[in-house]
Amino acid sequence: MKLLRAGREGQAFYAALRGDTIRRLRGLPYDGIAYTGEEYSLRDVRILTPSEPTKIVAVGLNYAKHAGEMKEELKKTPVIFLKPPTSVIAHGQDIVYPGASARVDYEAELGVVIKKLCKNVPAGEALDYVFGYTALNDVTARDLQAADGQWTRAKSFDTFCPFGPYIDTDYDPANKRITSVLNGEVKQDANTDDMLYNVAELISFISECMTLLPGDVIATGTPEGIGPMQRGDVIEIIIEGLDTLQNRVV
Amino acid sequence: MKLLRAGREGQAFYAALRGDTIRRLRGLPYDGIAYTGEEYSLRDVRILTPSEPTKIVAVGLNYAKHAGEMKEELKKTPVIFLKPPTSVIAHGQDIVYPGASARVDYEAELGVVIKKLCKNVPAGEALDYVFGYTALNDVTARDLQAADGQWTRAKSFDTFCPFGPYIDTDYDPANKRITSVLNGEVKQDANTDDMLYNVAELISFISECMTLLPGDVIATGTPEGIGPMQRGDVIEIIIEGLDTLQNRVV
Repeated sequence: MKLLRAGREGQAFYAALRGDTIRRLRGLPYDGIAYTGEEYSLRDVRILTPSEPTKIVAVGLNYAKHAGEMKEELKKTPVIFLKPPTSVIAHGQDIVYPGASARVDYEAELGVVIKKLCKNVPAGEALDYVFGYTALNDVTARDLQAADGQWTRAKSFDTFCPFGPYIDTDYDPANKRITSVLNGEVKQDANTDDMLYNVAELISFISECMTLLPGDVIATGTPEGIGPMQRGDVIEIIIEGLDTLQNRVV
Repeated sequence: MKLLRAGREGQAFYAALRGDTIRRLRGLPYDGIAYTGEEYSLRDVRILTPSEPTKIVAVGLNYAKHAGEMKEELKKTPVIFLKPPTSVIAHGQDIVYPGASARVDYEAELGVVIKKLCKNVPAGEALDYVFGYTALNDVTARDLQAADGQWTRAKSFDTFCPFGPYIDTDYDPANKRITSVLNGEVKQDANTDDMLYNVAELISFISECMTLLPGDVIATGTPEGIGPMQRGDVIEIIIEGLDTLQNRVV
């Protein structure tokens, strides 16, 4: 099932998508799907971020070749950082190039959306806590990442976390092609099986540290091939079997 | 004025404190204070975190002597990181020592609570966006901080961001003694005037990156004298002119 959030006539709501028809849900989708009976055409609503995360937990250096291109040594455990809720934007919204940076990069990532409160979960049970999957762009001010040492500022600008357009709740993330496409040209091109830590391992590791809540998002790391975007560029994150996430840089 | 959040009979609400009497507020306090008329004794309520931040933006290395003890070079700009909303606890709640760490430190910090949406604010206007001040303990798993390189995991465990007990809206943070006291013994002892970047400069810098929202918290960095806590310890953050923040480690 494809889930989304939509805006229409000043209201925002969760909905399920079938074909071009969206079926409005009562409340949140995490505890079960209840329809209001209202249906709209996809073109008559505004697409919002498909969840409202209280935090976005991102994983660094989770593809060995990307760690290599960053000249970063691999750690014994995943390296995590946070992107704030104010950084999220939906499919179709603009990434705003900040004045503080002269080098803003795309980073194609598989996004995992959490279904229920998750704390100290072993890897063997971790997938029970997944609501679904989506495409995510971990936009990064590469120059500030290097200058600061800590990655937070470089990753936290408003509009630096596009994700969506939908959450696919039936998706199997194994062995999927993951690409970033800049103005029609393929830039990153890898496979989700190249991840050093898989989704279950990441959820388990993160939940040992912090409680994950329904709608929270894990950004599972980006493969090699990162590079800069310029104002006016169109960046697409295309993950096999998921809908394309497209945003323009302004 | 001292503002707090309180819990009573399964309800949570904002309130103003005068002496030992708390006066319940209607809704949030940020747009103006409206009383419901209900009053309680402070001892008849549970003290909650005095705001509900959507993010906690923390500042590293903002006291030169602490940067020295961490053997960290000072950067040209403030170094920021995020603590997640799931890390906050109130005055009197327990800091939970995580199994993943063998070295958990206190860090006394002045906390700044944001009053209204704040984006790209110059330093000269930044104090208009401050709702008030509070004590904050930036609890840190020092061993994981060193192992990870990135500070996020070390700073993000559940219960690792005690702050409160109250927000003082009339407070002037200049030239105030700031101490941490472990089991009655003074450990950190410095002055807020030793900050490399003051509150206005920090708000301006952070708001160039990310939008700050009402109730969001800035942790302004810790002075020298950091050290470990053990299970059973009582840690107090005492900032001159503010009420003491006290928590036990379990």
